[in-house]
Amino acid sequence: MPEKSSEQMTLILHSGEFDKLMSALILGNGALAMGMDAVIFATFWGLERFKRGGLDCGKLSSKHFLGLGRWMVHRRMKRAGVASLDRLLADYKELGGRVIACEMTMEIMGIDRSSLRQDLIDAFGAVGTYVNEARQSGITLFI
Amino acid sequence: MPEKSSEQMTLILHSGEFDKLMSALILGNGALAMGMDAVIFATFWGLERFKRGGLDCGKLSSKHFLGLGRWMVHRRMKRAGVASLDRLLADYKELGGRVIACEMTMEIMGIDRSSLRQDLIDAFGAVGTYVNEARQSGITLFI
Amino acid sequence: MPEKSSEQMTLILHSGEFDKLMSALILGNGALAMGMDAVIFATFWGLERFKRGGLDCGKLSSKHFLGLGRWMVHRRMKRAGVASLDRLLADYKELGGRVIACEMTMEIMGIDRSSLRQDLIDAFGAVGTYVNEARQSGITLFI
Repeated sequence: MPEKSSEQMTLILHSGEFDKLMSALILGNGALAMGMDAVIFATFWGLERFKRGGLDCGKLSSKHFLGLGRWMVHRRMKRAGVASLDRLLADYKELGGRVIACEMTMEIMGIDRSSLRQDLIDAFGAVGTYVNEARQSGITLFI
Repeated sequence: MPEKSSEQMTLILHSGEFDKLMSALILGNGALAMGMDAVIFATFWGLERFKRGGLDCGKLSSKHFLGLGRWMVHRRMKRAGVASLDRLLADYKELGGRVIACEMTMEIMGIDRSSLRQDLIDAFGAVGTYVNEARQSGITLFI
Repeated sequence: MPEKSSEQMTLILHSGEFDKLMSALILGNGALAMGMDAVIFATFWGLERFKRGGLDCGKLSSKHFLGLGRWMVHRRMKRAGVASLDRLLADYKELGGRVIACEMTMEIMGIDRSSLRQDLIDAFGAVGTYVNEARQSGITLFI
């Protein structure tokens, strides 16, 4: 049994909404910047964002932009020094954050590996993989 | 004060959506299969699923089926070797998973004990019950 | 690195829905009543509830009242001995619960300090503030 540590944040990213995805990446990047490990276990709508083009603005409905419209949100993010989702995800990977794709989601939602951005995915796993990561993590969240 | 352990997963199941309920049961079963204890504290829409007939397909709207239709989802679940919600819940109980029904939810949402599947519910409790379970759990999630 | 403890509950309150807000406050108050520390890190729609008037009934749509109508929910809450959101929040503060407002949310959603109920907010912080609180918390949830 791995010892409990405060040194890892393990997120289940179940939702694919703009604000939830953004929160997950900001949390992961924050943990990494503070010397923790970070794992995102992507399931259901969260995994859909890891499909090719899944982060494209066109794939996000207007309600995903906080009810403000895409242009306004992007202007405010820029002004606040917040990177785009693409940039946040690139930072996450560069800082050593890991992404695990849920194999059961792939089967149920009909997502095959070739449709996923495999450059962003470190491993494909099932619930056992998640439990092993989470049980040694100081911070566990379902987003 | 109980000592912090990696040996329990304690979930608050607040949502009653098909994909969230499925995730909770798969997580619980995964934890149990790996030798951990598991507790589901069922509140609000999550508790409604523990009413008699609460897992019936007819009670789940089409949007609860991943936007794919009930038949397609069931076919894919079967192909992926994923059990139905009924079977996942039966497995959860057989593996020793516990379900605690939130008494406050029952009062606010007007759910009485006789309408609940008491064969699946181990205890009725309030927030103090939850806190006692969660504070000794290595994995805590709000689903 | 702070040592892992069972003595704090740290919630991210991302959602602003009636039932989620109520759950967060009941959880926080429960933890405090049992001698734990509690922190609510308010982001996105959760932070909007900390605007002046953000807890007013008129600001909550009918779907936020469990599909039952405002009057019915309030009657049931009263009968169940559950305080109003205003009262739950006042209790939370009196018991020593802390609220941290997410600065990034303020910039992206265009919320300025003067529009927030600063009497309820203990600090303004970024993700680093959250990670520091959460990594020493026994219970971490994303609501």
